[in-house]
Amino acid sequence: MASNSFGKQFKITTFGESHGKALGGVIDGIPAGLSLNLNSIQEDLDRRKPGQSSITTARKEKDEVQILSGTVEIDGQTITTGASIGFTIENNDARSKDYSNLQDSFRPSHADYTYDAKYGIRSIAGGGRSSARETTSRVVGGAIAKQLLSVENIEISAYVERVGDLSVPFQPQFFDRETVDSNIVRCPSSEIANRMIAKIEATKNEGDSLGGAIVVVAKNVPVGLGEPVFDKLDADISKALMSIPATKGIEIGSGLSGSLMKGSEHNDEFAVDQNGNVKTTSNRSGGIQGGISNGEDIIVRVWFKPTSTILKEQNTINNSGEVVKLKMDGRHDPCVLPRAVAIVEAMLALTLADHYLRNRTAKI
Amino acid sequence: MASNSFGKQFKITTFGESHGKALGGVIDGIPAGLSLNLNSIQEDLDRRKPGQSSITTARKEKDEVQILSGTVEIDGQTITTGASIGFTIENNDARSKDYSNLQDSFRPSHADYTYDAKYGIRSIAGGGRSSARETTSRVVGGAIAKQLLSVENIEISAYVERVGDLSVPFQPQFFDRETVDSNIVRCPSSEIANRMIAKIEATKNEGDSLGGAIVVVAKNVPVGLGEPVFDKLDADISKALMSIPATKGIEIGSGLSGSLMKGSEHNDEFAVDQNGNVKTTSNRSGGIQGGISNGEDIIVRVWFKPTSTILKEQNTINNSGEVVKLKMDGRHDPCVLPRAVAIVEAMLALTLADHYLRNRTAKI
Amino acid sequence: MASNSFGKQFKITTFGESHGKALGGVIDGIPAGLSLNLNSIQEDLDRRKPGQSSITTARKEKDEVQILSGTVEIDGQTITTGASIGFTIENNDARSKDYSNLQDSFRPSHADYTYDAKYGIRSIAGGGRSSARETTSRVVGGAIAKQLLSVENIEISAYVERVGDLSVPFQPQFFDRETVDSNIVRCPSSEIANRMIAKIEATKNEGDSLGGAIVVVAKNVPVGLGEPVFDKLDADISKALMSIPATKGIEIGSGLSGSLMKGSEHNDEFAVDQNGNVKTTSNRSGGIQGGISNGEDIIVRVWFKPTSTILKEQNTINNSGEVVKLKMDGRHDPCVLPRAVAIVEAMLALTLADHYLRNRTAKI
Amino acid sequence: MASNSFGKQFKITTFGESHGKALGGVIDGIPAGLSLNLNSIQEDLDRRKPGQSSITTARKEKDEVQILSGTVEIDGQTITTGASIGFTIENNDARSKDYSNLQDSFRPSHADYTYDAKYGIRSIAGGGRSSARETTSRVVGGAIAKQLLSVENIEISAYVERVGDLSVPFQPQFFDRETVDSNIVRCPSSEIANRMIAKIEATKNEGDSLGGAIVVVAKNVPVGLGEPVFDKLDADISKALMSIPATKGIEIGSGLSGSLMKGSEHNDEFAVDQNGNVKTTSNRSGGIQGGISNGEDIIVRVWFKPTSTILKEQNTINNSGEVVKLKMDGRHDPCVLPRAVAIVEAMLALTLADHYLRNRTAKI
Repeated sequence: MASNSFGKQFKITTFGESHGKALGGVIDGIPAGLSLNLNSIQEDLDRRKPGQSSITTARKEKDEVQILSGTVEIDGQTITTGASIGFTIENNDARSKDYSNLQDSFRPSHADYTYDAKYGIRSIAGGGRSSARETTSRVVGGAIAKQLLSVENIEISAYVERVGDLSVPFQPQFFDRETVDSNIVRCPSSEIANRMIAKIEATKNEGDSLGGAIVVVAKNVPVGLGEPVFDKLDADISKALMSIPATKGIEIGSGLSGSLMKGSEHNDEFAVDQNGNVKTTSNRSGGIQGGISNGEDIIVRVWFKPTSTILKEQNTINNSGEVVKLKMDGRHDPCVLPRAVAIVEAMLALTLADHYLRNRTAKI
Repeated sequence: MASNSFGKQFKITTFGESHGKALGGVIDGIPAGLSLNLNSIQEDLDRRKPGQSSITTARKEKDEVQILSGTVEIDGQTITTGASIGFTIENNDARSKDYSNLQDSFRPSHADYTYDAKYGIRSIAGGGRSSARETTSRVVGGAIAKQLLSVENIEISAYVERVGDLSVPFQPQFFDRETVDSNIVRCPSSEIANRMIAKIEATKNEGDSLGGAIVVVAKNVPVGLGEPVFDKLDADISKALMSIPATKGIEIGSGLSGSLMKGSEHNDEFAVDQNGNVKTTSNRSGGIQGGISNGEDIIVRVWFKPTSTILKEQNTINNSGEVVKLKMDGRHDPCVLPRAVAIVEAMLALTLADHYLRNRTAKI
Repeated sequence: MASNSFGKQFKITTFGESHGKALGGVIDGIPAGLSLNLNSIQEDLDRRKPGQSSITTARKEKDEVQILSGTVEIDGQTITTGASIGFTIENNDARSKDYSNLQDSFRPSHADYTYDAKYGIRSIAGGGRSSARETTSRVVGGAIAKQLLSVENIEISAYVERVGDLSVPFQPQFFDRETVDSNIVRCPSSEIANRMIAKIEATKNEGDSLGGAIVVVAKNVPVGLGEPVFDKLDADISKALMSIPATKGIEIGSGLSGSLMKGSEHNDEFAVDQNGNVKTTSNRSGGIQGGISNGEDIIVRVWFKPTSTILKEQNTINNSGEVVKLKMDGRHDPCVLPRAVAIVEAMLALTLADHYLRNRTAKI
Repeated sequence: MASNSFGKQFKITTFGESHGKALGGVIDGIPAGLSLNLNSIQEDLDRRKPGQSSITTARKEKDEVQILSGTVEIDGQTITTGASIGFTIENNDARSKDYSNLQDSFRPSHADYTYDAKYGIRSIAGGGRSSARETTSRVVGGAIAKQLLSVENIEISAYVERVGDLSVPFQPQFFDRETVDSNIVRCPSSEIANRMIAKIEATKNEGDSLGGAIVVVAKNVPVGLGEPVFDKLDADISKALMSIPATKGIEIGSGLSGSLMKGSEHNDEFAVDQNGNVKTTSNRSGGIQGGISNGEDIIVRVWFKPTSTILKEQNTINNSGEVVKLKMDGRHDPCVLPRAVAIVEAMLALTLADHYLRNRTAKI
């Protein structure tokens, strides 16, 4: 069934496989009159693209987006017209031959087996549609969503908080792109970042892989976004983030640790700031109460499993159901977290853009 | 915007407030020819209903469901016709006067403030639509979904794994309704259950509240459920469960702990069982790979914050933005977990029923 | 598949069969803060209800709507809260025994055969869900939609323009409820109305039935409603009206006759009225250009086939595929047009309410 | 709001303007395992493309489709994988300068005014998204839908039945592509076709335009397609066809003429054919009863207004609200019917493909 769209009012529909001609998508429902900064879209793509550093896959892709519709040029500006925005990103460095040994066997904890069972057919090279390469289109959509949100001064920023057992404590000042991008692992503490990088490189050399966690924050979100009872803001954010490959857990605000508190410890008391605005004196809710944003920072943590592609020999079965040994080569990320920062931001942006527009009909 | 429906093919649409005339909903997209057991629906409602034990709210509701359409009686059986199933559950014991002190002030970490800000108006008594009482309709839908799934022998079972800092280790044999329901907290270990009950009662006496975690498992799920790239099974499950009031975290399979492993430790190797069926030798994936079920048990953990309604005095503000003291009485759950077991099962059932039907068009 | 909802932003979901316990539905997506006039809802239901005159079916139903949720009472007014509105209408006069002869044979041009083939099961009494009785819920939704539209002064009015070969020429002043309801056939020309009534009575006495056409107009529709390229206003109106039982044709504006003109004859030239507002000097477009309302009256004509239930003997087949004679009794409308006026208005209102809300996100 | 998608289960999402870089779209929900014939897609595009004859616009476009994803090559065949199919069609011959005189004034009965009012901005060249050039993407989607339907031997064929006051009587043998395409107007009677062509040429020379009607038939449609009560097959077909630019009317089966009959004349009696299959002895229902296909030919007539672009001088207003004279040149179709045959077939195919898949969940 149709399942390559996300969002109801601001909707992205994507296509494209790891080793096909191109990836791309359609942004539908964007209001007319938004001035688009195409460079910003490319910047987000560059943060996600392969080959950007020594700790990412060596695959080389330019990942250049081409916008095909939905805008007009007025006085040197690119303005949305309200029409759907089609875009493509060509694949340049797809080496299908690397995957010849996968025609017969299923990579453990990959989607090979489930795709085969579901569809009876599979784009073997690079995992086809199950490859995280599909998220390229999400980053384009997210970058456009961010520009819509910036009309309301909403800002979204993520960083790598954990790689394996190495983590950095939560600090508000970490949410600054310059700080985040100051090192290749995108952890805002340079000391921890260096240890993370060393750990990733060592693990890569073992032919193994690592997981971790990313924290994402949205600032200046107006009160009122979220549509109970099913399309609550936290519910839609959870879906958005859990649709990213390799995710295994989501926490909103206090998350798991909040479950250990008593209500009197966990409740966020209301107060009024010096400008007369309603504030909470703590933010264990993570900016969402009753499924609706309350004006505080939206804070979400996403947990990733270690990359399932490893270069160590593993047991698996082949198409005939026989147990075989599998040893992959190819080019892969030993830890997806540094590149996933851009994807996490994109999915949160897509969710907020959708809810920002949906909220326009809450009242008469 | 319309947001009271869940599911695309098997879809529930709900209505009803805490203190209104009735709750109810519509089940749309159920195939014709399913024999419905109405007693099973009521049994699930009874597990969720208030007043069922000393550790739940004292509100008394019969929570009797009335099915209004979508079935015919044939040979003493109630058979679905393919038409939409409308149903209602009357409210009996709504005491609106308990809420008179809330007309002017916002309960901390409740939805009072966000609803007011979003809609400009609010059903004050009992929290209106933001009350967990709305989940009654979900339980009806989930009970019907379970019956659809039982055609494929799919079984869904949940239990309370944690209350505050008390938890019970994961054990497969725990997923048995008789064991789960053998005590009022719905924790399958009677020893831990007794400690949980004591803890809840003590906390209730303090006027405080507790959070915790529920584990839910679906067994016998066929390979192939889940619709990438956005409607992955784990993404839709996360949305389903995070739309339940008071949830703050979701884990699929290994969850957060998986992020600490290396790929070689985390990957689930494939094997073949004695019947020639594909199996994995471990299940850190939690039954889902690439967003599609792989035939193993689907295992999900949901984390709940402590109930935000407490009887201790709290600081808050009133409608005029003045800081005030708030002390609630009324009837509330000191810990929502025991009743939430039925809701968690219902939401997983609704998600799987939707994907079970959606999967019928995967192949030519 | 789920198919009992109409609308994306203002959405109605319905349930209920001809001879079940109750009909009803859920209105989802209605903005908060709308004052509802419950009497107006009942008035629309009364215009659709059976037994209202000598030329409608003799079935007696009170068709009283009960609103179950989604509103609060403030200062004697019923105000929407933004929550979904659930409602029911009980069936009172369902005589299932009238249908016993239908258990074995298919009524010609009815839905008996197609429902049996599709679902393998059927609510035989009264046609179950295929009965026009399901439109009761649509009238409730439409009446609420009208009240939302009235905030913008949008008015919707329909009348019977044709019964068989008797028709009345189009005149703007006909769109007045008092005039339309001044006779039981709901044709605004009393002279033609009398002839229509006589014709229907004569046809009824023959055991036969009649078709015809209804014209519906929406006045004061703001410029800008309609969402190209697929959800154009005329496309969604056509779907809405063609989902009413017994419809066979739709015309927007000039309709079929426009196809006989040349472009220079058909184009609506633009002008400016005395208030400086853009107007067209003719309205062959029927108020919609490029799928978007242009501020002129929206004019649509709906064509109905003659009621398929007749009391004359007909050839058909039974469940065993044998050719048999079928002669129905039961209570039926010899001409559905007089009652369908309320249904046509309701479906246009639902469509416009949806597009009115959808249009709020057209611009930044 | 998002509105560039059609279909729920087999869904097309489109983008692209008349004078942009490219048009294109995404086909989502196509089952895996379908062998695609790319030549057939191009053939359908060629039937729609401009410049194909003396009676169509002189604009020259190759209209070559490029498939970017969703298929694999196996043994020389192009097989769908179940992934979304992205495609593009480049614009080659867009002469924006032809439209410079439209920057200030609204073309009568075009979408210029309504787009300006709705979006506050407009792609002036060629009408942007409101141009019928957007239907290129629909034809690609429809061609793929036809190939899915051909698995069930469903065939779809349309022809021009009327141009202005010239029409050809309905005949079953007309539905043959070779006959239809034997002349440039796509009317299957060569005698009437010649008169239509002469009429179009004469009208073109006057700088004027013509409307007309197209009949489309689907053969071998299985019983059971259609999803009451809102997504009835005739309702969804009506929406599909009324979303095509310039349409003003729809008739299903007997259409308007059926409204003049009595029920005893109009009802389709059931019978059994020599193979024991259920048949009706007439087909005034047009193959749809109760919103569900009954196995007979689906017959629909679509009425088009005369092209609103004419070369005669017209009165209109400019952006400042002043009345001005407008005289267009540019390249346009004096009658859209010959090219619209491919679009009508495509929209019916998209609707049937969607319902064909949706019907898979009707029964347990």
